[in-house]
Amino acid sequence: MKAYVEWKGGMLLEGKNAEGMSTFFDSHHPEQCYGTPMEIMLQAMASCSIMDVISILEKKRKTITALHVEVDSDRSDGHPKVFTAVRLRYTLISPDAELKDLERSVELSQHSYCSASAMFQKAGCEVSWICEVKAS
Amino acid sequence: MKAYVEWKGGMLLEGKNAEGMSTFFDSHHPEQCYGTPMEIMLQAMASCSIMDVISILEKKRKTITALHVEVDSDRSDGHPKVFTAVRLRYTLISPDAELKDLERSVELSQHSYCSASAMFQKAGCEVSWICEVKAS
Repeated sequence: MKAYVEWKGGMLLEGKNAEGMSTFFDSHHPEQCYGTPMEIMLQAMASCSIMDVISILEKKRKTITALHVEVDSDRSDGHPKVFTAVRLRYTLISPDAELKDLERSVELSQHSYCSASAMFQKAGCEVSWICEVKAS
Repeated sequence: MKAYVEWKGGMLLEGKNAEGMSTFFDSHHPEQCYGTPMEIMLQAMASCSIMDVISILEKKRKTITALHVEVDSDRSDGHPKVFTAVRLRYTLISPDAELKDLERSVELSQHSYCSASAMFQKAGCEVSWICEVKAS
């Protein structure tokens, strides 16, 4: 996999994938419009897992009305400030999925499929999660 | 650090940082407009390092005319497809920085400061880099 990242002035950076699709990164300052690299790395990890969960729920022929994940994390105090713990709360709204469907999907993602979470876990980060399903 | 990721239909996901700034993630399909989580994770790693390099060059009072990083990577064949090697090529255009200035900045980033690269390295990924400086 290839990537390209270009400085756009200040701390604003434009990342591009092999097809030229952009993602912007910035640091904390008053005119900031984009997340920081570590914020976006954390979102990428949750996103990677959510895509697994969507695929698995679709294979189970479950209806997804809405799905979101709230993430909280801890980082080490000193440099480099690696993630030491990530806690994910998966919330699914569905008329036909049960809690066990979501739980099994998340377990498959976190234990077998999610490449980003596997990177976090291999780096010594403790990844934990809870699931909730609301009917709609 | 907190994050929030919401499903927007298909495989499109919207990530938000604590201040509500958005980053979009998608999977490969014909109408895709955004990078995948693993592509953006790789860009986040390079971006984290570039921000260190910018800070260090600014402390050295060097002028940055342009700066970009080309990234290539390998991933494991089976699931989870973790990054096994990342190769970064830092290119700086500057009227007053020398190659040793860029090399020292990248070494400090990669060995001490860059939280994202440290996550990759702790996960067993081999991170390597080359530097080039062009006068302007």
